[in-house]
Amino acid sequence: MNEKRSGILTIGDELLIGQITDTNSVWIGQKLNKSGWKILSKQTVGDDVDAIVAALEDMESQCQVIIVTGGLGPTSDDKTLEALSRFFNRPLILHQDVKEHIERYFSERGRQISPHHAKQFYLPQGAEALTNQVGTAPGLHFVREDVHFFITPGVPQELHYIFEQYVQPLLDRMASRREVQAHLFTAGIGETSLVDRLGAFLDQWPAWIKVAYLPYMGGVRLRITAEGNDLAENSRQIEVMRQGLKDRLVPHVISEKYDQWNEVIQHMMIDRKMTLATAESCTGGYIASQITTTPGSSAYFKGTVVSYANEVKRNVLQVREETLKIHGAVSSACAEEMLKGVLSVIRADVGVAVTGIAGPGGGSAEKPVGTVYVSVGNDSNVMTQRFNFRSTRQGIVEYTYNQAMYMIYKFLCAR
Amino acid sequence: MNEKRSGILTIGDELLIGQITDTNSVWIGQKLNKSGWKILSKQTVGDDVDAIVAALEDMESQCQVIIVTGGLGPTSDDKTLEALSRFFNRPLILHQDVKEHIERYFSERGRQISPHHAKQFYLPQGAEALTNQVGTAPGLHFVREDVHFFITPGVPQELHYIFEQYVQPLLDRMASRREVQAHLFTAGIGETSLVDRLGAFLDQWPAWIKVAYLPYMGGVRLRITAEGNDLAENSRQIEVMRQGLKDRLVPHVISEKYDQWNEVIQHMMIDRKMTLATAESCTGGYIASQITTTPGSSAYFKGTVVSYANEVKRNVLQVREETLKIHGAVSSACAEEMLKGVLSVIRADVGVAVTGIAGPGGGSAEKPVGTVYVSVGNDSNVMTQRFNFRSTRQGIVEYTYNQAMYMIYKFLCAR
Repeated sequence: MNEKRSGILTIGDELLIGQITDTNSVWIGQKLNKSGWKILSKQTVGDDVDAIVAALEDMESQCQVIIVTGGLGPTSDDKTLEALSRFFNRPLILHQDVKEHIERYFSERGRQISPHHAKQFYLPQGAEALTNQVGTAPGLHFVREDVHFFITPGVPQELHYIFEQYVQPLLDRMASRREVQAHLFTAGIGETSLVDRLGAFLDQWPAWIKVAYLPYMGGVRLRITAEGNDLAENSRQIEVMRQGLKDRLVPHVISEKYDQWNEVIQHMMIDRKMTLATAESCTGGYIASQITTTPGSSAYFKGTVVSYANEVKRNVLQVREETLKIHGAVSSACAEEMLKGVLSVIRADVGVAVTGIAGPGGGSAEKPVGTVYVSVGNDSNVMTQRFNFRSTRQGIVEYTYNQAMYMIYKFLCAR
Repeated sequence: MNEKRSGILTIGDELLIGQITDTNSVWIGQKLNKSGWKILSKQTVGDDVDAIVAALEDMESQCQVIIVTGGLGPTSDDKTLEALSRFFNRPLILHQDVKEHIERYFSERGRQISPHHAKQFYLPQGAEALTNQVGTAPGLHFVREDVHFFITPGVPQELHYIFEQYVQPLLDRMASRREVQAHLFTAGIGETSLVDRLGAFLDQWPAWIKVAYLPYMGGVRLRITAEGNDLAENSRQIEVMRQGLKDRLVPHVISEKYDQWNEVIQHMMIDRKMTLATAESCTGGYIASQITTTPGSSAYFKGTVVSYANEVKRNVLQVREETLKIHGAVSSACAEEMLKGVLSVIRADVGVAVTGIAGPGGGSAEKPVGTVYVSVGNDSNVMTQRFNFRSTRQGIVEYTYNQAMYMIYKFLCAR
């Protein structure tokens, strides 16, 4: 069976000029990859008929499935339907079922249908309308010479609904699934040190097994891919490679199952029936907000005090006036008192406290921007580390989050 | 002068499969747009020589400037230099200055240079090396038949450094700057209601003035673009259009200068010399972390209590046991007591408290997933609203953030 190739096209001027971040193509990429499809390229073009047609022509010659999102809205700056009509060389015709669905959608919600929505009743002749239960714009499915085009609205919920309802089942039927993957989530090691450590181990493998390195701010994610023709042989080789990498990267391999810190820590905390609280200064609540993105985090996460002002460090976390005067708010003494304070205020089994300078202002020669203290521990054991991150404001927050989670991990491993 | 056209190419398997989100192209897009360049398309391909060459060929025929990022690292899965060599038809040759820079970079940091870095000394013949002061991989500049290719590392800091140092000055010299833009940030109105309100006003304009609508979770951002040949006339027409839109969209226009809630609120709070605190349950610290992404937020933002567990609502925020029993944690009574509690614990002039169900679990018929209560106010005035958001876990958090900020805005407007 031949390799199955796919492409992703996202449409919208706001994507090109960076007014919003294209998270739809990230989501679609994950879905295609998981279903065993090779993704050949991702493109983004503006709300422009010529550009949309050119991108579709380019992809049609290379892919068996093309996923398109965006530009299906009711306003005049949405050009996708017009572009599809030109590209498929089919007129836009009234789809009675779409019209009825949209009219029902509005009447069920007690809302008046706007004349602008009439535009959404007209789809290229020969296109299959994919009913959208969570919005008005329908999705479309069009097949031309064995190439499948799926067009969905750009609103994330609507994309997700249409993709899961109509696109995923077809992808699963068509995919060859000859690719096998494994993942290693590492921490506390940079890309070059990691490659140095692996040394000659990587030279002995056939070309159809590949290791990819994805550095993040605190370590490297590794992805092993075997795409030989024999699925069982792929699995066998992946297993040998995986074990070999693990042996050489001890103690930096954190997980093979999870590749996000919040997932790793959630499972460890729940296993140990422990609870967690955070005290945050320079991260401004980012650690807590990352922790709580994972469903089920309420099973172990109790809460946070964000003490952005020193007054809150004193009054709520009981950091001593003297500590702030002698050592300053960015100091190991302050981090440790914040930790003690949050454990007493929130009463959790384990706490983490961070204080630092995220910049761009506020640095000094002794404590430059990027100086961060992290304390992790409980009533009887505390570990504190000083970091000097060189990055932007957001980068320093992200580095701090990853290091704080790594410290929690190490603290829990010893329990 | 002809319109200046640009393209963005980002390289990396991890971008295609959605393992990481492509924020580099967002940043580059903002820079190009601000410098008056039209962005024709954005493409992402994997670490694959054929795919990189094909994408470059495609862009070369259409653009005068092409910005490429990624795949310049020292490991074997980085293929960009090999692809450039093939595309430009030039061998990779030793660049002595690059070698010396990288050796110095390591020795200055007291680190051993790894043999893998030797790969980074070799660039295509004829390429200008762009010295990277914040990392090892150099950037490249190559000109072929008046098309400028800039290639930068994918590490955000390194991209930013090389772009600002070498790319931006050339962009500014080459740009025609015949485009003028204006922005309106609105809240509390959806895309179709907004278009209905504008009605016939939009019909009277020449084709070279365009309005684009970018819905976000809580309103719409509008971008007006005039790209006629006469710059002064562009400015005049933009001004007329801007004023016309504002008149018709009262009271939904929040700002013409800022298009992010955290910037809007920061300026209003500092103007009024007021301080803010948040009490967060279902948002888990997200509101605080968004507020603190803006440099200077410490001038008004004091801190937060994230009361994820009910115990923290009771013990830290003094929410009454009775309130939790009779009304539940997701209720207007609880939101109001959380607000009162956080104002007393953190002592700020204005507070915001949110409690709700972000899902996927925890919903009921009476209070489905997406039910959120937000209270905003001070010791004497409190406003509370119930919302029913239909979205994913992350979407509900994002909607809540935007609505909470909108409520703070309205509260401050009355002051």
